[in-house]
Amino acid sequence: MPRTRKSTKAASVWNEVAELKREKILQSAVDLFYQNGYLPTTMDVIAESIGATKPFVYYHYENKAELLSEIARRTLREWLAVTTHVTDQSLPPKEALSLAAQQFTMIVLNMYKLVSIYYREQLNLPKEVADEIAGMRREIDAQVRTILAEGKKTGVFEFEDLAVASQVVTGMVSFVFAWYREPSRLSKEEICAQMVSHVLRSVGATTTPS
Amino acid sequence: MPRTRKSTKAASVWNEVAELKREKILQSAVDLFYQNGYLPTTMDVIAESIGATKPFVYYHYENKAELLSEIARRTLREWLAVTTHVTDQSLPPKEALSLAAQQFTMIVLNMYKLVSIYYREQLNLPKEVADEIAGMRREIDAQVRTILAEGKKTGVFEFEDLAVASQVVTGMVSFVFAWYREPSRLSKEEICAQMVSHVLRSVGATTTPS
Repeated sequence: MPRTRKSTKAASVWNEVAELKREKILQSAVDLFYQNGYLPTTMDVIAESIGATKPFVYYHYENKAELLSEIARRTLREWLAVTTHVTDQSLPPKEALSLAAQQFTMIVLNMYKLVSIYYREQLNLPKEVADEIAGMRREIDAQVRTILAEGKKTGVFEFEDLAVASQVVTGMVSFVFAWYREPSRLSKEEICAQMVSHVLRSVGATTTPS
Repeated sequence: MPRTRKSTKAASVWNEVAELKREKILQSAVDLFYQNGYLPTTMDVIAESIGATKPFVYYHYENKAELLSEIARRTLREWLAVTTHVTDQSLPPKEALSLAAQQFTMIVLNMYKLVSIYYREQLNLPKEVADEIAGMRREIDAQVRTILAEGKKTGVFEFEDLAVASQVVTGMVSFVFAWYREPSRLSKEEICAQMVSHVLRSVGATTTPS
């Protein structure tokens, strides 16, 4: 019995170390893809940048496309988690949009390199990953539209076309990746608060508490 | 004298034909870069796609980077022309922002492939072109900020930070490239009109005529 427990513990430590190693490789890939682009970056360069061998990298990631896929998946998974979390709470539309904009912006700020890579390198995603990601995008879009439609119905929001409004809202928040750089004059919290105001206003909501 | 006139005319026809050829090469490069990415597209493939030889393409464009540079320059030049045209008219801030948003959106709609390539392939621009383009971006941004600052001062616009507001406005309009596809359910004019409403609202302006 103690033997099993020990093995389990050893296995769990081993898993944790493997996870840390995978994460280190991914972070290095993010920096290199962001700085130099996906296509010119080789697995060799990724290995070198963390002082590891190429087989070590291949042991954790089958190929470069798997690294890119993980970067894109992680970005979309985080966004989808936000809209799902907001949707699950059945908040009034203005509170829902406000919370979604705040959390969505924070993700873009925290992951602006991943978001940039995702937008730049979509053509290089394997077909099945591109499809999977398109599915997540559709889900996010449907949840944003539900919030916007509800707000329009109850007269809290004012806009003409639901599809355009939804793209405007997700677009202005996503686009933060294109201008946010560290160090930043404004804190992340300040930027999020201002994005919430701009998002609410953009669909005709007042920014005073409802 | 008639001889000179004839030569001038011949030269002008020749120039016109050369310009048409250059444009045909560029349009083919736009389609191919948009579809397959810049790095995997070769000058050979560009030549093939218009049924021309590689020397023919090289005669008009020194290298592939020159094609990409022209795509990026054209995008930025068009945007800068809009903000300059609007600024030159000394319109009241709401009219100025409205006109800029309308014309800026129309450019993105008309040139969404070029805008996509510009955003995706910035890393592949030659250093001096990247610098030139960064200069144009700064000029555009300065003109947008002037309009926004004027509107804030006169109480027509309401927002907290000028830099964030300026990025929000240019970002939401630029981002149209990421979702606009042809054929489109809405006409370009309808999309422009709706973008104007969203832009005005996003900086706290009313959308009724002032």
